[in-house]
Amino acid sequence: MIEEIAPQTGAAFTLKKGERLRVIDPQGMQVSDMVLFNEHDIREKISSGKTLDFEESILISTGNHLWSNRSRKMVKILEDTNGRNDFLLAPCSPETFQIMYDNPEYHPSCFENLYTNLKPFNIFPDDIPTAFNIFMNVQFDSNGKLSVLPPMSQPNDFVLFEAQMDLIVGLTACSAEDSNGGTFKPIQYEIIIN
Amino acid sequence: MIEEIAPQTGAAFTLKKGERLRVIDPQGMQVSDMVLFNEHDIREKISSGKTLDFEESILISTGNHLWSNRSRKMVKILEDTNGRNDFLLAPCSPETFQIMYDNPEYHPSCFENLYTNLKPFNIFPDDIPTAFNIFMNVQFDSNGKLSVLPPMSQPNDFVLFEAQMDLIVGLTACSAEDSNGGTFKPIQYEIIIN
Repeated sequence: MIEEIAPQTGAAFTLKKGERLRVIDPQGMQVSDMVLFNEHDIREKISSGKTLDFEESILISTGNHLWSNRSRKMVKILEDTNGRNDFLLAPCSPETFQIMYDNPEYHPSCFENLYTNLKPFNIFPDDIPTAFNIFMNVQFDSNGKLSVLPPMSQPNDFVLFEAQMDLIVGLTACSAEDSNGGTFKPIQYEIIIN
Repeated sequence: MIEEIAPQTGAAFTLKKGERLRVIDPQGMQVSDMVLFNEHDIREKISSGKTLDFEESILISTGNHLWSNRSRKMVKILEDTNGRNDFLLAPCSPETFQIMYDNPEYHPSCFENLYTNLKPFNIFPDDIPTAFNIFMNVQFDSNGKLSVLPPMSQPNDFVLFEAQMDLIVGLTACSAEDSNGGTFKPIQYEIIIN
């Protein structure tokens, strides 16, 4: 069954070892921030530093694993129809909009949507790590300069993950204008048990 | 006064707001992993995702700040005589040597040297974030492929940081062969109060 995450919101759920998670961009050009925790010990969580180190790549796609801070595999990427994801940048937060967008007003953010949805799992704001930013199009030049461009994802592009341990998953439909070409769209996901 | 961190060991100490920390590579071609915590609330810590986001660069050097998971500036880099540091890769850990070096024997690591030295501050292994890897020469190509090359630092190259809040600092003389051209050397540091 395909679930929908409304624009600028999030979701959290468990995913057991061996189950697969398909994250879908139904309209194209939208980003979904994902964080992962060991369901049985939330101090073990997704780590960008461990993943980039073990996978020896900034760009993470089909065949790569996402690793935990305890150097264990959390998910394997089985399929990625778009092929561009980011694991460099932190989830957009209230401060992202205040500092980078010069917008002092309230603005929904992936950070808020992650911690509010993860609260029932006893996961709090300080526990949120750098997210795996599915479909996010962060370009870098040879001098390391980073720029956030609109996603290249087409309608119904997806990334398919397979859990390597029992997981708590936090997932968003991104709230940041720069990440998705200035529009806000839903994200869909499907848990595949067999 | 200049303190020395022996090869393959670490240190931890406080650094008050406004104080400066000079991290020196006395012999050249050595790496020092640094982690930072808010002295008054250790749940606030250095964040690679926040730093790369706010500084809009993979490469972090003079003029850049290192940011916390709460989107606050922790240190400013006042001077960097070498100019190459890494903020992508996690500190080397026992698993680094088992998985990447195919070495099942005990091997000292920055991860162990960080958490053992930070234990008196009630900081434990799961609390250690991706470190700022001073002098570390991680190259990336346009496809995102990462390679760890020997540091370009010359004897007595240094990076000078200014604390933007009261900090706990963890610092190592790196234990990984790949990071320092196959040799193990000391790191020096100096806290400058005035």
